[in-house]
Amino acid sequence: MKADLDRLMAERALDALLIFPGENEDPYRTYLSNGALHSGLVIKRRDHTPVIIVNDMERDEARHSGLPVYTYDDFGYGELRRTHKDDPDGIIAAWYRRIFAELGVAGKVGAYGVTDLNTALRTLRILERTFGDALQFVTEQPRETIFDRAYETKDADELARLRDVARRTSAVMRATREWLATHRAAEGIAVKADGSPLRIGDVKRHVRALLHAQGLEDPEGMIFAQGRDAAVPHSRGTDDEPLRLGATLVFDLFPREPGGYFHDMTRTWCLGYAPPEAQAAYDAVMTAFSRSQEMCAPGLSSGQVQRMVCELFEAAGHPTVLHTPSTTDGYVHSLAHGIGLNVHEAPYFPTFSDRYTLQAGNVFTIEPGLYYPERGYGVRVEDTACLNEAGDLEMLTDCPYDLVIHLES
Amino acid sequence: MKADLDRLMAERALDALLIFPGENEDPYRTYLSNGALHSGLVIKRRDHTPVIIVNDMERDEARHSGLPVYTYDDFGYGELRRTHKDDPDGIIAAWYRRIFAELGVAGKVGAYGVTDLNTALRTLRILERTFGDALQFVTEQPRETIFDRAYETKDADELARLRDVARRTSAVMRATREWLATHRAAEGIAVKADGSPLRIGDVKRHVRALLHAQGLEDPEGMIFAQGRDAAVPHSRGTDDEPLRLGATLVFDLFPREPGGYFHDMTRTWCLGYAPPEAQAAYDAVMTAFSRSQEMCAPGLSSGQVQRMVCELFEAAGHPTVLHTPSTTDGYVHSLAHGIGLNVHEAPYFPTFSDRYTLQAGNVFTIEPGLYYPERGYGVRVEDTACLNEAGDLEMLTDCPYDLVIHLES
Repeated sequence: MKADLDRLMAERALDALLIFPGENEDPYRTYLSNGALHSGLVIKRRDHTPVIIVNDMERDEARHSGLPVYTYDDFGYGELRRTHKDDPDGIIAAWYRRIFAELGVAGKVGAYGVTDLNTALRTLRILERTFGDALQFVTEQPRETIFDRAYETKDADELARLRDVARRTSAVMRATREWLATHRAAEGIAVKADGSPLRIGDVKRHVRALLHAQGLEDPEGMIFAQGRDAAVPHSRGTDDEPLRLGATLVFDLFPREPGGYFHDMTRTWCLGYAPPEAQAAYDAVMTAFSRSQEMCAPGLSSGQVQRMVCELFEAAGHPTVLHTPSTTDGYVHSLAHGIGLNVHEAPYFPTFSDRYTLQAGNVFTIEPGLYYPERGYGVRVEDTACLNEAGDLEMLTDCPYDLVIHLES
Repeated sequence: MKADLDRLMAERALDALLIFPGENEDPYRTYLSNGALHSGLVIKRRDHTPVIIVNDMERDEARHSGLPVYTYDDFGYGELRRTHKDDPDGIIAAWYRRIFAELGVAGKVGAYGVTDLNTALRTLRILERTFGDALQFVTEQPRETIFDRAYETKDADELARLRDVARRTSAVMRATREWLATHRAAEGIAVKADGSPLRIGDVKRHVRALLHAQGLEDPEGMIFAQGRDAAVPHSRGTDDEPLRLGATLVFDLFPREPGGYFHDMTRTWCLGYAPPEAQAAYDAVMTAFSRSQEMCAPGLSSGQVQRMVCELFEAAGHPTVLHTPSTTDGYVHSLAHGIGLNVHEAPYFPTFSDRYTLQAGNVFTIEPGLYYPERGYGVRVEDTACLNEAGDLEMLTDCPYDLVIHLES
């Protein structure tokens, strides 16, 4: 959690963390800024509070962080732009020289952020030339950075926000199921009151209205995929397809509170009836889902849970990534991922590694699935859970699991 | 426009453009992928069609681009992950070696994208070590990159989408004004039918519902700021404030079609009446707004228009960034910015530079404003315009400019 950053910085001998300015949303910036939205620079020295440096126009927003806020002009940015008018690289060099001198930034610095790469790379090269040996930009293994490690556990404030977005997302999922059940079956498809086909685009529109009513954003979109599409895990579904009776519908919903925390959940439904093969796959997935919940506990490697699920599926005759690594049939992904300001973050559940040990404060999905594109179906069930301070697995998602939604004819 | 990329690459001696994989939204990736949403790698060699390399699960989505699509495993990613299990840097080196050999990537390469900086920097350093002199990653001046230059003009497909998002955004702005006018005035504030105060949070909720009904997203939020907040250009407004009669309300709306193009517009309103000082500032802003429209034409430097507005305001006694560069009173920003897949992009309208020459295909805002935080008011008016193929300034925004919204008592 955020309180671990100083310890993590000490362990990795990092003297400072640097988030470059940028207009896009940046979860690193949001995290260090305690949720305040701005496009400025954030600098955290080890054992010091982060400080924010923003364009003067953003000073009020930045102060919502509760952190020290400086403006660009506190370090002479406007003046440098005039004196170095034809030397933009010189502006960068001189400006950072002032900032780093004033704030005491030196040594091993980690540059983080979701930011414009070409601009950041140019700035880094300028700073390397400007500061020489006094400053080294260090990189870390992806998924093992200091932020990945901090994100891996949530503090009480974060858990409260994650519970709230879980409650609201679950309400949308339940309402979608209830709304689907108000449709009729006719000639093998679901139809509206006027007899016209109910299409995937109609469903997505209705879900967006439900999300809106719950005050949720869907910056990453959603998946509502049917039949063969449902068997390609990240296919988002085809808007103009009518909903067919007996087809598996995989509905994966991962919205966010505005500018903040995500939830992630999936239900698979069949309208009218479930074909025996889809029902059998669904039962196998639900077994894996229950076994995973029973198994997840502090001290266990997440990889062990992933391999247990692979073995369970393989024993039932399904290929998995454990012994058929590039398979597109059967169980083709990993069981879970952590979730927070990023829809995917640590802890991950890799098949071939034990580098994530489950611990109190983890918030992660559990999402077994089986996929058969050639046979035209896929199923997945997903809830988000946390390991609370008592070490218990607490399911944050609250929504029934019934496969079949009955429609009137 | 996109068709200029090969010419721009030749001018700058760039052999290839590289967009790294990443889960976040990336306008560079969207642009090169013709709007297809995926988290993969995009590589464009000079005089070749871009190619997309995605995780197998995203292959269907990536194919919506109409471009050649490869999967990670086409270059042995899964196999490398097994053979280099304890050497993640080695996986990156070997995988890119296969990709670059197969696709013929060498020479001067520009790395672009809005991406995870620490990860991208690590990858770049690995590639520099792996390829030695055969590959150089070049950086460009921010706001002058090959993409900035391409974004600067829009092709017919892009203009059609920008006109459509303009139409929908204008409808939201007009509907907001009409809805505000249905409220009553009581004891110096606007009240709802039940007599309770109408607050900024209520307005934003209503606007979000209107955006939703128009199928628009607001990934960057909106500004609805009153009085002193309205005088700090990027202050977003305070949700629990009741709307006060006679206060300036600056409503800046910059939504986006899902995953695509932005619109940007601002109106300033006073409920009930306008105090003489606010009315005078508004009149001055409207004069600057009209003069700017008359002046914008192909061949002119955008800086000339910005300086004309500064001089106009200074002649009326307002400080501006022309002669009072760090002022927070008066005219404190630049007149305009281009808009497209980014809410701010080229052409910019810098005060002290003539590096942007207006030309057919530009799409940009025009947004003069005057700000007096100590006196508790700010005003801004903004439309988005394009210079069409005939060289005419075509206003894309369609919404009245009346300052005062009359309320019944």
